[in-house]
Amino acid sequence: MEKKLIFPQSEYDRRIRRAKEMMDRRGMEAMLVVDPANMNYLTGYDGWSFYVHQGIILSLADAHPIWFGRQQDANGARITTWLPDDCIFGYPDEYVQSRYTHTMRYVAELLRDRKMADKTLGVEMDGYWFSARMYLTLKEELPRAALMDATNLVNWVKSIKSEPEIAYMRQASRICEKVMQTAIDAISPAAWEKDAAAKVSAAQIAGTDGFGGSPPAIFPIMPSAQRTSTAHLTYDPDRQYRRGDVVLLELAGARHHYHAPLSRTIFLGDPPADLMKTADGVVTGLQETLRFMGPGVTAEEVEARWRAAIAHTGVVKPSRVGYSYGLNYVPDWGEHTISLRPGDKTVLAPGMTIHFMPGIWLDSYGFECSEPVLITDSGCEQFIDFPQQLFIKR
Amino acid sequence: MEKKLIFPQSEYDRRIRRAKEMMDRRGMEAMLVVDPANMNYLTGYDGWSFYVHQGIILSLADAHPIWFGRQQDANGARITTWLPDDCIFGYPDEYVQSRYTHTMRYVAELLRDRKMADKTLGVEMDGYWFSARMYLTLKEELPRAALMDATNLVNWVKSIKSEPEIAYMRQASRICEKVMQTAIDAISPAAWEKDAAAKVSAAQIAGTDGFGGSPPAIFPIMPSAQRTSTAHLTYDPDRQYRRGDVVLLELAGARHHYHAPLSRTIFLGDPPADLMKTADGVVTGLQETLRFMGPGVTAEEVEARWRAAIAHTGVVKPSRVGYSYGLNYVPDWGEHTISLRPGDKTVLAPGMTIHFMPGIWLDSYGFECSEPVLITDSGCEQFIDFPQQLFIKR
Repeated sequence: MEKKLIFPQSEYDRRIRRAKEMMDRRGMEAMLVVDPANMNYLTGYDGWSFYVHQGIILSLADAHPIWFGRQQDANGARITTWLPDDCIFGYPDEYVQSRYTHTMRYVAELLRDRKMADKTLGVEMDGYWFSARMYLTLKEELPRAALMDATNLVNWVKSIKSEPEIAYMRQASRICEKVMQTAIDAISPAAWEKDAAAKVSAAQIAGTDGFGGSPPAIFPIMPSAQRTSTAHLTYDPDRQYRRGDVVLLELAGARHHYHAPLSRTIFLGDPPADLMKTADGVVTGLQETLRFMGPGVTAEEVEARWRAAIAHTGVVKPSRVGYSYGLNYVPDWGEHTISLRPGDKTVLAPGMTIHFMPGIWLDSYGFECSEPVLITDSGCEQFIDFPQQLFIKR
Repeated sequence: MEKKLIFPQSEYDRRIRRAKEMMDRRGMEAMLVVDPANMNYLTGYDGWSFYVHQGIILSLADAHPIWFGRQQDANGARITTWLPDDCIFGYPDEYVQSRYTHTMRYVAELLRDRKMADKTLGVEMDGYWFSARMYLTLKEELPRAALMDATNLVNWVKSIKSEPEIAYMRQASRICEKVMQTAIDAISPAAWEKDAAAKVSAAQIAGTDGFGGSPPAIFPIMPSAQRTSTAHLTYDPDRQYRRGDVVLLELAGARHHYHAPLSRTIFLGDPPADLMKTADGVVTGLQETLRFMGPGVTAEEVEARWRAAIAHTGVVKPSRVGYSYGLNYVPDWGEHTISLRPGDKTVLAPGMTIHFMPGIWLDSYGFECSEPVLITDSGCEQFIDFPQQLFIKR
């Protein structure tokens, strides 16, 4: 198999060293990583095989992690990871969704073979991909191992991006600008919502003339009318847009699974005065908050600054107003580390990437206008160049 | 909020009765359902909000399930479910990805309020959406509850489709036929892989003139060349197809999240003799096996019939050759119930929907040709009308 990697080996080496440093600091001798984005981050593995159990095992004692997955996906690991063949283990199909055995038995056997059965072992306790049954099976199979919580350990390593990662995020941003423009062009009274969503999906994958996109971790969120009163509905497959609709757009470009998310809002027709007022308040508050964001400021201070900026408008936003994002697969492009909200003491640092996302969902309509930014040495840099306004189409 | 449901109330009532029957048979007084497809099945709930904790609680004692989710998604439940407002509970944003509290504490409080804290409570132990931490938090918060394994309980209810469900699966099949034709038209030497994938994605969403599609639970799997030696790689975003490529297509149409999956294979140029031979063997075996499938036959007998049909060809397929499918969200359209493989004793029955998927992945290339079918009173009916052959493009 010819390997095809998107980063130089030095980048993966740096990530492994950083992950091991975090493990060592917590007294964790080995770690089972099953989150597909974390697997990709550490080894390069990239395939839509995460619907069956798979993972990597990273041990402080070993130079290379090992990959395990379904036998039919092992060639995918040979092609997309930097791991040598003897670190790639495919399990037979009888483990897949079995009522009689469990993949974690296979993993326990791998750990026993490698003398890791009595070590401290980190597992991603609250991840999407580590089920209660996986945990109990591992505990039963490895009674002498001490299971530790490694939820988000790799995610925190990911929270500071390297230059090569930022380069991909800039490419994702170029895709995102095309995607957002595609949506604004496609949405107008009498157009079918499904046709607009189809054009948006195509733009996400086609990318630019220079490079292709990846499927984003969240399907285009583009609700209209009543459906904008809540955060995560998408298009109605059987509806045409109508004059008087608000349409919310939460869309991303992605490049090698590195994201650039962006929210904007469209009104079809003459917008009501209160929506214009909400839009003005949010956009002004957004701009003030972006001037404030930078290294040394905490996540909760950013949220407080935003709240102060919109206090006079009467706009209320009782949820977090942003989060760390980057490399991800479904179901979320957020990294589950930094949240812009009261109580989050994270000190922002250069290389962090934050989606500042002041969305408002009132009972009659919503308004969103967001920006993804890079924390730099002196402030924050917007990844995206797209007007911050309510878009009006007649 | 104006409710918008895709089935009549009688359909949801039937599902709730069937789920309660299964619970009662196992001595389960209440059940926590967090799988998004199972939530949708029982209540209609439909939103891309499953990246935070959410679920429904179904109790034998209550006529209605209750829905819980993030506050900003509660209006989504008001719009898309049949539940009355007093059965919809939104939790505050401080629970989201918190390092200090956990959503299962909120859920435990709901259960205590409803006098369910000392009941037998089913949880989807091995689902994607029920993490080890969720389990341990529930156990800690509800020491007198008896947690039981409800993995796939709803999935088994889902395995027999009703007429209204089959109607949507037929619509999904019309979308799938358009999607597959779009792929075959778009793939040719010198075309960019990303552009073909973009057209496929758009066709999935645009659907037909009469109805729109849903985003399928698996992104289009369309690897080329070396990448066809494994099961779950997709397009290369920076590559053009070349003469001599094999391209595998595992694509779906979906309607209201009901799927129609289909696999086909393309060769660009003059196919090598061994690929032609593999294709002939697989297609003949596929057709023989489809004639055999029907009510009363077991899942393992179908696999054995397939193995016998291809024994003379030398083609080896050591993995399962099909599975139950239907209503789903990412990451899988399979239902995790019936598998066509040795040991699966499920007796096929009218209303079951099976993706018969004989894929072959050799080290140099792969070949796939599949059919999704409905088990009828007398045999099986193909959902899809699309030629079963190796497609050759020059």
